Amino acid sequence: MSGGEVAPAPRTGLNPARTVAELKELRRLTGDEQGAQRVAFTDPWLRARAFLKERLAELPVEVHQDPAGNLWATLKGESGRELLIGGHLDSVPNGGWLDGALNVLAGLEVMRRVSAQYAGRPPVTLRLVDWADEEGARFGRSLYGSSAASGHFDVAEMSKLTDRDGVSLPDALAGVGVRLEDAQQARQELKNAAAYLELHIEQGPVLEGLGLPLGAVLGTVGVERHVLTFHGQAAHSGSTPMNVRRDAFLAAARLGQEIYAIAERHGGVCTIGSVKTWPGIVTSVVERCEITLDQRHLDAGKLAAMWQDAQEAAGRFAQEGGCTVEVGRLWNIEPIPFDPDLIGAAEAAILETVPTSHRLPSGPLHDAAEVARAGVPTVMLFVQSLRGISHNRIEDTLEEHLELSVVALDRLTDRAMAWIQGG
Amino acid sequence: MSGGEVAPAPRTGLNPARTVAELKELRRLTGDEQGAQRVAFTDPWLRARAFLKERLAELPVEVHQDPAGNLWATLKGESGRELLIGGHLDSVPNGGWLDGALNVLAGLEVMRRVSAQYAGRPPVTLRLVDWADEEGARFGRSLYGSSAASGHFDVAEMSKLTDRDGVSLPDALAGVGVRLEDAQQARQELKNAAAYLELHIEQGPVLEGLGLPLGAVLGTVGVERHVLTFHGQAAHSGSTPMNVRRDAFLAAARLGQEIYAIAERHGGVCTIGSVKTWPGIVTSVVERCEITLDQRHLDAGKLAAMWQDAQEAAGRFAQEGGCTVEVGRLWNIEPIPFDPDLIGAAEAAILETVPTSHRLPSGPLHDAAEVARAGVPTVMLFVQSLRGISHNRIEDTLEEHLELSVVALDRLTDRAMAWIQGG
Repeated sequence: MSGGEVAPAPRTGLNPARTVAELKELRRLTGDEQGAQRVAFTDPWLRARAFLKERLAELPVEVHQDPAGNLWATLKGESGRELLIGGHLDSVPNGGWLDGALNVLAGLEVMRRVSAQYAGRPPVTLRLVDWADEEGARFGRSLYGSSAASGHFDVAEMSKLTDRDGVSLPDALAGVGVRLEDAQQARQELKNAAAYLELHIEQGPVLEGLGLPLGAVLGTVGVERHVLTFHGQAAHSGSTPMNVRRDAFLAAARLGQEIYAIAERHGGVCTIGSVKTWPGIVTSVVERCEITLDQRHLDAGKLAAMWQDAQEAAGRFAQEGGCTVEVGRLWNIEPIPFDPDLIGAAEAAILETVPTSHRLPSGPLHDAAEVARAGVPTVMLFVQSLRGISHNRIEDTLEEHLELSVVALDRLTDRAMAWIQGG
Repeated sequence: MSGGEVAPAPRTGLNPARTVAELKELRRLTGDEQGAQRVAFTDPWLRARAFLKERLAELPVEVHQDPAGNLWATLKGESGRELLIGGHLDSVPNGGWLDGALNVLAGLEVMRRVSAQYAGRPPVTLRLVDWADEEGARFGRSLYGSSAASGHFDVAEMSKLTDRDGVSLPDALAGVGVRLEDAQQARQELKNAAAYLELHIEQGPVLEGLGLPLGAVLGTVGVERHVLTFHGQAAHSGSTPMNVRRDAFLAAARLGQEIYAIAERHGGVCTIGSVKTWPGIVTSVVERCEITLDQRHLDAGKLAAMWQDAQEAAGRFAQEGGCTVEVGRLWNIEPIPFDPDLIGAAEAAILETVPTSHRLPSGPLHDAAEVARAGVPTVMLFVQSLRGISHNRIEDTLEEHLELSVVALDRLTDRAMAWIQGG
C-alpha cells in the first residue's frame, strides 16, 4: 500500500469527520467546564448511552443490554463467527472527551460503512460493544463489564463495593436494570467471538514523541506493585555524625535512582509514586521510609527480573546503610499479549492510512485485556495523545489524527473480517 | 597531671556517688515508667525544684527565683566576680533521667565541696542556676529562661505561645509566680558573671564511639534549616517512558545521597528528615516532592558553603530531570563558639580525671549558647551517652562515667576560679 505523504481517501461511505462531530456533541451533552462526567451508572452516562442508541436505531442492527449492563449492537453476517469492536462510554469524573468514547463512536462509524457496503449483510457478523464501567472511578474496580464477560469476576467481592456516598455497587446496578448476581451470564456474549478490536488514545507520550499519529499495540503490560519499607534508626540531626547514621531515607533515595537503571536494563518502566517518612521531623534522621514501587513490562520474564533486581538493590542499599527492608505485595497482573496475526493486520491497516507505524505496549489496562484473557484473538490501535495526558479535561488529540484513527480502524476491520473468513 | 589508668581520688569533700544517688531519687520523685516527666511549670517540675531547694538549704547560700523563673543559689566569695554553673531540671515528656538534671545536681555537689573547702567563703563568688524551660517541650520555644537572661527574647512573640491544651505561656508562668513582661529583668543576673560552666550528657554517639567518658565542647554549631520543593510533572506510571519523565522524587533522591558528600567535604552534618510526595499515589510519577534539610557546622563560613553546595546540587538535579526547585528558609542560627581559655581549662580538667580527652562541637543547642551570646566566657563538658540516645526513657550513661563527670566539673571549677582571679 501507499507509503506516500497523503492519506488515501476513506472507503466509500466512511465519514471520519462525523465521528469527530459526534464526539463533540457527546461532550456537550455529558460534560461541563470541568470535563467529561460520564461516570458509569449515573445520569450523564445514561444520556451517553441514549445518544448511542439513537444512532444505532438508524442501522439494521439488533441492540440489547447483557446481564452485566454492557450494551451490544449486532449486524448479522453470512457467517455466525463474530468480529467485535469495543470501547466504553463511561469516563472518570472531570475526565477527557476521548478516553473510551472514541472507540465506541469510531466503531459506530465503521459499522455504518460495513452495513452500507454489504447492504446490511457482511461476510462475518460485526458487533459493537459499549462495556460498562471500564474506569472503576466510582467503586474502585476497573474493567467491571468486560471482566464479567471474561469470567475474571468475583461476585462476593464485588457485592461489598460502595461509592463515597455509601451506595453499594449492587444498588447502583439495580438502578440501570442489572442484577449483580446475574452479571457473569455476560460470558455468553463472547461464545462466537472470533476477534476483538479496540481503538484508544495512547494516554502516553510515545507516539507524540515520535511524531506519529498511530500505533499497533502489542498487548497490555504486566504489573508488579509493591510497598517497600526501610527500617533504620532515628537519631538527632545535630549530634549524630554522618558515618554512624542508619538513615532509612538514604536507602530509599538510592533505590529512587536505581530504578532508572533497572528499567533501562530490561526495557520496562518503574515508578516510585509515594514516599513517606517517620518520624518525619526536621531534627531527626529518618527511622522508617515507606515507598511504593510499580513495575511494568510486556514480557513476564523480564518483569520478574525487574522485580528481582529491585529487591536485590533494596536489600543491598539497606544493608550498606545499616538498615533493613521489608517487602509487601500490593497487586500484580501478568502481561497480556495480543494476537500476532492481528498485530500484523493492525500494522498493515495503519500503513494503508499513514506512512509510518509503530509497535508499542499499553501501560494502562483496557477492556481488550479482559477479552484477550478470555481467549478471543485481540488487538488495539493507539492514536496519539497530546502531551500524553488523559483522565483530565485537557486530554486532547488533533482532529486530523482522530479522523486518521477512524480510517485505520475501518481498514483493520476489513482485514480482520478477511482473517476470520480465512481462519 | 596523671595520664595513668586509675582516676585520682576526688577533692576532699566531693562525693560523686551522692550525685548519682540524688539523680536516682529525683527520677523516683518526678518520673514514671514512661520516663522523666519534669516538663517546665508543671507539678513534677515544681517537685524537682523543691528537691533542689531542700538541699541548697543545707548550704550557706542565698537562693531566689529571678523575674524569668530561673532559680539562683549564690555562695558569696572574696571577689564579687562570679563563676556560674548551670543546668536545667526540666525535661521533655517521657524524657531521660540525665538531660539537664545531671548539670544541676553535679553543680550542687561542686558547690558543697567548694563551700566546705573555703568555709563558706571561696575566692570568687560561685553561683548555681537552674534555668527554666530549657526544653521548650510544652510551648515549642526552647531556652526560655536563659534567653530571657541573654536578651534574645521577644515578649510580644512569647506571649502568643500556647500549649496543646490552649493554656498560654503567660498563664503558665503566672502559675509559678512569673510575669512574662518582667522576664527580661533576668539580665541583671549576668551583670557580674565572669565565666559559665555547664556539664551535659553528649546526646550523641561520638564519645561512645571513641570509647571515651568525657569531652571538652568547642561551641554549639550553627544551623541552616530549609524546605526544598521539587516540581516535576505527574504522569501515568504505565504509559510514560522513563526518558521523558519529570520525576520530582528522582531529583530529591539524588540530593538525599549528595548531602553525604557535602557533609564529608565540609566536615559538618546534613539531614533530610521529612519527605512528602504529591499526588503520592502508586500509579503516578511524583509531581511535587517536598523535603526538609537541616545543616549544621561549628564554622559559619563552612556552614554557608554547605548550604550553597546543597542549593547548587538541588538546582542541578532538578534541571537534569526537567524539574524546578524552590527554597524556603525554616530557621537558622549562627555558630556560637565557646571561650578558648575555658576550652583549654576544660581539657586540662578532663585530663586530671581520665587519661584521654576529646574536643567536639555540640549539635544540639544548650543554655550555655545563650549565656555565651550574652558575652559571658563559657565552656561545656560532655559525658558519654549510651547509644547516643536522649529525650527518651532509655537515655542512659554508665554510673562510673557520671561520677567521673562530677569530678571533672569540680576540677574545671577550680581552674575557672583561678582563671577569674588571674583575669
